[in-house]
Amino acid sequence: LSLKGKRLDFYERVDTYVNVNNTIPELSRFTACIDLTFIDDNSSYWTAFSYITNNTLPERENIHLGLAGDHQQLIVYNLGKTFYIPYHLTPFQWHTVCLIWDGVKGTLEIFLNKQRILVVMDRPQNLTSNGMLALGNSLKNRDSQDKNVPSFPGSLYYFQLWDHILESEEFMKCLDGNVVSWEEDVWLVNKIIPTVDRRLRCFVS
Amino acid sequence: LSLKGKRLDFYERVDTYVNVNNTIPELSRFTACIDLTFIDDNSSYWTAFSYITNNTLPERENIHLGLAGDHQQLIVYNLGKTFYIPYHLTPFQWHTVCLIWDGVKGTLEIFLNKQRILVVMDRPQNLTSNGMLALGNSLKNRDSQDKNVPSFPGSLYYFQLWDHILESEEFMKCLDGNVVSWEEDVWLVNKIIPTVDRRLRCFVS
Ligand SMILES: [Mg+2]
Ligand SMILES: [Mg+2]
Repeated sequence: LSLKGKRLDFYERVDTYVNVNNTIPELSRFTACIDLTFIDDNSSYWTAFSYITNNTLPERENIHLGLAGDHQQLIVYNLGKTFYIPYHLTPFQWHTVCLIWDGVKGTLEIFLNKQRILVVMDRPQNLTSNGMLALGNSLKNRDSQDKNVPSFPGSLYYFQLWDHILESEEFMKCLDGNVVSWEEDVWLVNKIIPTVDRRLRCFVS
Repeated sequence: LSLKGKRLDFYERVDTYVNVNNTIPELSRFTACIDLTFIDDNSSYWTAFSYITNNTLPERENIHLGLAGDHQQLIVYNLGKTFYIPYHLTPFQWHTVCLIWDGVKGTLEIFLNKQRILVVMDRPQNLTSNGMLALGNSLKNRDSQDKNVPSFPGSLYYFQLWDHILESEEFMKCLDGNVVSWEEDVWLVNKIIPTVDRRLRCFVS
């Protein structure tokens, strides 16, 4: 279904996740953004989104792309690397996190709201295709998902994925991802009812 | 010569650098620390230390290990990756930066004073041996050093390099590196006179 104008209230409900039914292609460049808000201030490990691909590497690296964290740090998974960035996200307000990868140059930029919080220069690499994208939970073990894992401790909104690099001024505009878009009819929602919320940024766009 | 009890006042003097005359071995684990203080608040690109190895990759990656920055960010070079971390280091006071690499796990930790400011999980890799270590400047082009490059905009002190991982409580103790030590007679000083300074931490140790 389309999630236009709706937020997803996970609220740590167990065995709750949302995924997309379209295929993610191999991407040499991408921008991935999501809006998140927390309902408490002492969260243990949470996942905002995770993109899992098949590979034979140790479990950590199965999260080919993802945004996670706890109450004191953001954890970004990008193409085999994991970054732990000390950051406390204030609860009860929306934050936008964007990951921008230029796989031709090998450059990763991480933005929190409009502020760049890390840049990494690495080697050229593409995002692997045909993986599984999920919001609110990490489906690391597809066949044996721990059904007692709490989902995201708050709400998620406006996940977008583009196959190119957006400038920082563009993040906060109401633009639809051209690979995955919040308002496209691609979302499969499990044990959660999307909530219409007229106060959301980009409610009307 | 030994730099025990002495700081190095680079003060942006051009064509000024300091290096060591011992050979750096291949290291699967290391801890590298340095103390730095700035004499102004708007520095353009500076280098605290750089370790350059021979390789055929693009120039950026010749800095196999290093600490650099400008007035608004730290720049850490580690084994082919470059990290740009927004951080403003207050001038006129000493700061200690430590880089800790566990090349068996593939984990980098960056500490500023006693605070961990970034953790990166990457793939296992060793520090290449037989490179050239310099303080206060980056000797990227050994044969054609730009002689008008300003050196570090302040003073440097207490560079230490160990072949193992130190815990954060150990950084601020007065421990000598077992690969490179500040007080060993290994330093070659070019166009700079080390300054005795009794207020330095670890002046007597
Ligand atoms: Mg729209
Ligand atoms: Mg000593």
